[in-house]
Amino acid sequence: MTIVPDDLTGRPVVPSAGRLRPLGLREVRITGGFWGDRQSVNASATLEHNLSWERRVGWIDNFAAVVDGRVGRDRRGREFSDSDVYKLIEAMAWEVARTGDAFAVASIEELAKVIERAQEPDGYLNTAFGHPGQAERYSDLEWGHELYCYGHLIQAGVALLRSGVGGPLADVAVRAADHVCNTFGPSGNQGYCGHPVIEMALVELYRITGERRYLDQAALFVSRRGNGVLADVEFGRGYFQDDVPVRDTEVFHGHAVRALYLASGAVDVAVETGDTALLAAIERQWAATVARRTYLTGGMGARHADEAFGDDFFLPPDRAYSETCAAVASVQLAWRLLLATGSPKYADLAERTLYNVIATSPADDGRSFFYVNTLHRRAIGGLPASDRAHPRAESGVRAPWFDVSCCPNNLARTFASLAAYLVTADDDGLQVHQYADATVSTRLPDGRPAGFVMSTGYPDDGAVVLRVTETSSSPWTLSIRVPAWAEGAVLVGPDGTRRSVGPGMASVTAVFAAGDEVRLGLLMRPRWVRADPRIDALRGAVAVERGPLVLCAESADLPAGRDVDAVRVDASVPLSTDESGAVVATGALVDDDDHDWPYAAGAGDAGSDPASIRLIPYHSWAARGPATMRVWLPTI
Amino acid sequence: MTIVPDDLTGRPVVPSAGRLRPLGLREVRITGGFWGDRQSVNASATLEHNLSWERRVGWIDNFAAVVDGRVGRDRRGREFSDSDVYKLIEAMAWEVARTGDAFAVASIEELAKVIERAQEPDGYLNTAFGHPGQAERYSDLEWGHELYCYGHLIQAGVALLRSGVGGPLADVAVRAADHVCNTFGPSGNQGYCGHPVIEMALVELYRITGERRYLDQAALFVSRRGNGVLADVEFGRGYFQDDVPVRDTEVFHGHAVRALYLASGAVDVAVETGDTALLAAIERQWAATVARRTYLTGGMGARHADEAFGDDFFLPPDRAYSETCAAVASVQLAWRLLLATGSPKYADLAERTLYNVIATSPADDGRSFFYVNTLHRRAIGGLPASDRAHPRAESGVRAPWFDVSCCPNNLARTFASLAAYLVTADDDGLQVHQYADATVSTRLPDGRPAGFVMSTGYPDDGAVVLRVTETSSSPWTLSIRVPAWAEGAVLVGPDGTRRSVGPGMASVTAVFAAGDEVRLGLLMRPRWVRADPRIDALRGAVAVERGPLVLCAESADLPAGRDVDAVRVDASVPLSTDESGAVVATGALVDDDDHDWPYAAGAGDAGSDPASIRLIPYHSWAARGPATMRVWLPTI
Repeated sequence: MTIVPDDLTGRPVVPSAGRLRPLGLREVRITGGFWGDRQSVNASATLEHNLSWERRVGWIDNFAAVVDGRVGRDRRGREFSDSDVYKLIEAMAWEVARTGDAFAVASIEELAKVIERAQEPDGYLNTAFGHPGQAERYSDLEWGHELYCYGHLIQAGVALLRSGVGGPLADVAVRAADHVCNTFGPSGNQGYCGHPVIEMALVELYRITGERRYLDQAALFVSRRGNGVLADVEFGRGYFQDDVPVRDTEVFHGHAVRALYLASGAVDVAVETGDTALLAAIERQWAATVARRTYLTGGMGARHADEAFGDDFFLPPDRAYSETCAAVASVQLAWRLLLATGSPKYADLAERTLYNVIATSPADDGRSFFYVNTLHRRAIGGLPASDRAHPRAESGVRAPWFDVSCCPNNLARTFASLAAYLVTADDDGLQVHQYADATVSTRLPDGRPAGFVMSTGYPDDGAVVLRVTETSSSPWTLSIRVPAWAEGAVLVGPDGTRRSVGPGMASVTAVFAAGDEVRLGLLMRPRWVRADPRIDALRGAVAVERGPLVLCAESADLPAGRDVDAVRVDASVPLSTDESGAVVATGALVDDDDHDWPYAAGAGDAGSDPASIRLIPYHSWAARGPATMRVWLPTI
Repeated sequence: MTIVPDDLTGRPVVPSAGRLRPLGLREVRITGGFWGDRQSVNASATLEHNLSWERRVGWIDNFAAVVDGRVGRDRRGREFSDSDVYKLIEAMAWEVARTGDAFAVASIEELAKVIERAQEPDGYLNTAFGHPGQAERYSDLEWGHELYCYGHLIQAGVALLRSGVGGPLADVAVRAADHVCNTFGPSGNQGYCGHPVIEMALVELYRITGERRYLDQAALFVSRRGNGVLADVEFGRGYFQDDVPVRDTEVFHGHAVRALYLASGAVDVAVETGDTALLAAIERQWAATVARRTYLTGGMGARHADEAFGDDFFLPPDRAYSETCAAVASVQLAWRLLLATGSPKYADLAERTLYNVIATSPADDGRSFFYVNTLHRRAIGGLPASDRAHPRAESGVRAPWFDVSCCPNNLARTFASLAAYLVTADDDGLQVHQYADATVSTRLPDGRPAGFVMSTGYPDDGAVVLRVTETSSSPWTLSIRVPAWAEGAVLVGPDGTRRSVGPGMASVTAVFAAGDEVRLGLLMRPRWVRADPRIDALRGAVAVERGPLVLCAESADLPAGRDVDAVRVDASVPLSTDESGAVVATGALVDDDDHDWPYAAGAGDAGSDPASIRLIPYHSWAARGPATMRVWLPTI
């Protein structure tokens, strides 16, 4: 079939219904600042870094090995490694939409050639199954990840179409989707994949092609789940959300990335089919998860053993898992819920997650990454080697590559497409959900032009200026999110009127003229934060936030030989700022005095010395070499 | 070769040097009480339960499959399942020494027949490697567990010899040991096993046979370790203690059972070779581990992902791993260190571990078990099915069997041989390390008879009476441990003199007459316990102990619909006892009031109602059905 994309605006998610309409990479461009810097590093370093590693560890050669008939012998990497090639292609497609990057165009063309040839005539495409010396197709839906790989292939195909790159891989993706529908349709294999993602991929392909069978298949995968078709596994059926049907689930549980991808697909299905009950179910699950199973950073998934959500209030900061990919998935889900409902709480969580997990994972040079994002590191480990792939278990330090290396590619596609998550439109005007130096140029649904330049030093300072660049002679509304943490925020309209605005959306409706400014002022004072006392691991401790940033103490800022477990703070003393602009808490460093047995009637701190505790943004920790670090600080 | 055992006293560990001499199962008999009840259940239920499950899941048939040449096709169970058959045989051998149990004798004979025939002519014996359709012998030292299986085979052989059962399996064990020495000797394979245990097994076989090569091989395995011969694994080399040589290690780390078995073997090697530096290294590692990496219950190993010790002070009570087998290993290590040094601190930890981990694992009927022993269970899970083996990950409830089912067999061998861990002798007399209703009848090293009856209601009450039954006309010393937690303890001598005794060993030296009594009185008042503040997860919480028992709150004692996360206690109010004898804390139950986001400037408890909080022994939790439970109680 020939695909005629309905839009080339570079939007990852294009619902046909819902409260807000997304804008794309050709309508919103990030021009600099906090996120612009990260987009530049992603474009200039990470994309090539990831491609180079995928060649080195054999994941790309696996496709050639299929073509050459030697894959049963030669295949390298985990069973889902195909998906990482697709994620990287998706990232490069969005990068082309963003900048027209020639390296990305050439790389996509090269990869497309070998991937296309590895596809079977019936659309089947996977390097780990179905060839001589390998297990049968679909013989291991629990762990085989074949449908998961298609999901990422289809998402790459969607990105290729919406970025205008097109090419053979888009057709490969459509053939794979047809194969999935032919194989797993209503009268076919009644199974589903141990790792969701195919659901949201198929809905998006439906949105591009109008082919109803893709939507129907996605809906089928969502509704089949939770009926125990998959075999039980060591971690239990809840691990891949097969214990309870999606719409009967009370809270996200099991493997965090799986849970969040599944919920995203369920929202997509709900929006396209008008299934308000399903949408409401996901909204409830999200609210319960945010209230009881989410780290201060927005990180999700507390448990190492199964990369999973724990029970309510199981959120130990030491050895927090908080996988980078779960943060990517959480932002994808929040975006879908925001578009569907318009509620700013979803953008609030996305902001928290972007600044405190997604910005934390990559090193400044974009060539090493945290796989997990703990909130407390007790012991200094070694620096990872720069020349080998690391096990996930070593991921307490940023490493160049992992045996399971989804995170670097998930970051790459997120950074490349980030501008698409900033601003939306509705019948009345435009809504700013995230702040960045950016330009916005679009048309409202009724065709009127609307655009502005957003300028901000955020998150260093709290001024956000929207200067109108395109407008019309009739009134429209410019709205901007005021974060939930913001107290004392002020909005200044084009006529200079000032008003206090509380958390939520603040709006100005006017007949704007080019050059008109709407200005938001946020107070960026550092603030003490306490945790719900039911989070046992945080009792007697406080954290510090400034604007959207979670701060932390790092051993690099302590006297030599002291680590962060000696830190105590006095939360009754207001936080201050030192000459370098860093936030400083008043506190003490306690002595490291051992007992024979650490439990006693009168156990308490040993002696202590008063100290000023310097705090840095959590996202920038471990940039000065191996260090101990903690977000939650015990009180004196 | 023909083995002539040097003793039939039923002692699991018989060092040729060291401060104290162990007594065995024919010298010390437990006659009733807390541990006598558990020995009876073990004998009447657990041994047969385990044997029945090992048949059912195919672990015993694997040996027949080797004999029949069908093992490559038919083998069932994990690669180390042979070892569980051996552990069970060891348990049955000690049971024969204890009671002459006919079921055990018959079962051992039956198992011996098939196991003997599965051994290769060169002594190799393993059902998972080396046969048609299987991987080569010793092709996977990291995970293959072949030497681990020999270790348990040899321990079973030692138990058969020391219990007087003997039979062909003892010869099988010796042939296996010879095969190990031939294969892994100084000029042979330079490897070692990913899972230690062979070390202590070989030393014990040396102690029985006098064959120096077994000791030398054990010493070689200990000294080779930590030099990176094993391949790296997902969890890192520290997982199997291959990152640092044993004598350079600072603290136990990695997989807890592996670490503790290795340390036990190192102590055995150190004692037999006079390597005081190695012994001192293990003593230091033990002290650091007890001070910084041990749960209040004595449980070791905090992490689920790799069943491993965490960093110092990483001891979250929720999802504590605290594997039952690690507790068994810890008691084995403590016993070796006690014999070597005489320090009562080792018996203190053993007592804590016995009452709060080892007694916690089995259900009252001895037919289901905790694999892990968490100190805080937040959510009520389902009851495990009684008719299937469960994954370890489901081990938050007692289950009849696990896919990895070391714990039931490790418990069985511990209970069957428990009397051997109570009392020792030295040149001056006898030392009581653990209290139980028991009879002791032995000879001092100089040949004088010495014996007593120990009577106690411990741990329900704190009186321990030692009534001399065998003595001589010259003076000897009767010593008894006063636990580290005991304040205000009193010792009454045979002449009626009372004196206060502090923690440590309290002794009476006298020319005893039969009927003389030495009486220890311990105050059993419940007491509040606090944790070292560096254990972050316990800040702002207290626990309650009574005697050697850690107590806990369980939802079964709360109003319907409330779970233990609502419990708060006032540690400034003394603990009391209700009419049933249960310990009661004054406190409150807080409301379960949700926020949208659980972190805020003023986050605190919702409303609360005053409540009396009933506490039960931790070892008896989950006996009334699925429940939530917590040991550490947040203070008001």
